[in-house]
Amino acid sequence: MSDLQRIEQALSTFLAGPQASDGPPRLGEAIRYAVFPGGARIRPRLCLAVARACGDDAPAVADGAAIAIEMLHCASLVHDDLPCFDDAATRRGKPAVHKAFGERLAVLGGDGLIVLAFQALAQACRSRPDRLAPLMAVVTRSVGTPHGIVAGQAWECEPFVTLSQYQRAKTGALFAAATEAGAAAAGASPEPWRLLGDRLGEAYQMADDIRDVVGDPALLGKPVGQDAAHGRPNGAGEYGLDGAVSKLESLLAGTLAAIPPCPGAEQLREHVLTEARGLLPAGVALRAA
Amino acid sequence: MSDLQRIEQALSTFLAGPQASDGPPRLGEAIRYAVFPGGARIRPRLCLAVARACGDDAPAVADGAAIAIEMLHCASLVHDDLPCFDDAATRRGKPAVHKAFGERLAVLGGDGLIVLAFQALAQACRSRPDRLAPLMAVVTRSVGTPHGIVAGQAWECEPFVTLSQYQRAKTGALFAAATEAGAAAAGASPEPWRLLGDRLGEAYQMADDIRDVVGDPALLGKPVGQDAAHGRPNGAGEYGLDGAVSKLESLLAGTLAAIPPCPGAEQLREHVLTEARGLLPAGVALRAA
Repeated sequence: MSDLQRIEQALSTFLAGPQASDGPPRLGEAIRYAVFPGGARIRPRLCLAVARACGDDAPAVADGAAIAIEMLHCASLVHDDLPCFDDAATRRGKPAVHKAFGERLAVLGGDGLIVLAFQALAQACRSRPDRLAPLMAVVTRSVGTPHGIVAGQAWECEPFVTLSQYQRAKTGALFAAATEAGAAAAGASPEPWRLLGDRLGEAYQMADDIRDVVGDPALLGKPVGQDAAHGRPNGAGEYGLDGAVSKLESLLAGTLAAIPPCPGAEQLREHVLTEARGLLPAGVALRAA
Repeated sequence: MSDLQRIEQALSTFLAGPQASDGPPRLGEAIRYAVFPGGARIRPRLCLAVARACGDDAPAVADGAAIAIEMLHCASLVHDDLPCFDDAATRRGKPAVHKAFGERLAVLGGDGLIVLAFQALAQACRSRPDRLAPLMAVVTRSVGTPHGIVAGQAWECEPFVTLSQYQRAKTGALFAAATEAGAAAAGASPEPWRLLGDRLGEAYQMADDIRDVVGDPALLGKPVGQDAAHGRPNGAGEYGLDGAVSKLESLLAGTLAAIPPCPGAEQLREHVLTEARGLLPAGVALRAA
């Protein structure tokens, strides 16, 4: 089973569990609509890749960590798309949750996904209760304040913010959670894995900025030019397209250098490179790596 | 130190901790604005009262559980007040968060409070990691789907809902979390404490409905008549004022009968009765109990 299949199966099983029955039906529909069909599942696949690099001795815990991170990512997309933020009409090639279910179920669906993420972590750790506390520490830090995705989004409400401060919280935090949680799920110390996640987050953000400037909305499943439209910082806007690609290449070299010594380091290096190539729009190639 | 002081101190200490510095300043302000000054802190005081009745052998864990529940309650108020739900202008006698900070920081402030609640639980259990899993189970159930407060609010988006189904999720769930978490924080089995929380939640909801019909908005710090204005179910509307008071009295008798055998049962009984009297508007008295 591929990691992607493993994630889809874990998400399906979890979201069809006891918490799916007997509740308000439209809330359940809105939550499933926000999660399926997914995007590339980059963060949970990264989480599993790191867990494997660390031995993956408790696959159910790694699955729980991976889907918790994906549900938190989906929650942030649902709330980011709300009329008071991006007012985005589409997401992943279909109407955004607030367009399909209304604004109230978009707010509640995002809230529900945050709670479900923590529920998934707690359930996954039933057989390994010693792993719950380190996972909770890693995951709460990545979504809360001062450096998590909620804080990242809130920087948009401040008069002054630097590009790196904003992107580190808005995007980098969940990548760091993915690498740290992958390690913690496999019983390794999460701390040495944070730098890899931080750098991957920066590289991903740069690739995303490049796609926002030159990407194809039909392939992306979402509109392009959103950063300019919303007056948000964008690396490709700041450095120009060539500058942004150069920057991405050097970020990627730093990322590969940040993989801590571990049994599966070589395989993880391949994972990172394959991912990076897949993120760039057609016609934009990496020269190095 | 009274339980109220204990809660205020735990909230202040937690919200002034590392997560307060270095983040987007206005998000931090919005979160503190949503939490301070508080209401009656009924749920966290109930949590501490149950922890005490069960021996309160780990006060830091009980504090963490109590403030987690209060922050989840505050999060639900902030999101309930949003324009797409109640569009409430005031809360606790001052402008609602979305009026004071804008809709975006109200959405993010609520999200942030949900995450902070789980962070508080995890931090509080550092010295007693064995208590984290049972607390997580109790707390996630009370806020998520299918029976938690998010589900309760989502019942407002369904065409058909019964009064008890709606209120049990919207109000009862967090009362059940308060009693169960109080027990779990003190190392007792939470399950026998759920019925007490359920019944207290029903009694509280009935008292709240009575206040929504005959209360004084200046004393309540929020507008009255909101249920009728929003077409929401209301017990006093359904049974009439006298019927609602009778119903409250019988709910209260059932509540007292649901206190499980424990060393501090008598003190807890007094706590429940004092609370119930304090909830009713001036001029409405309980005949029994």
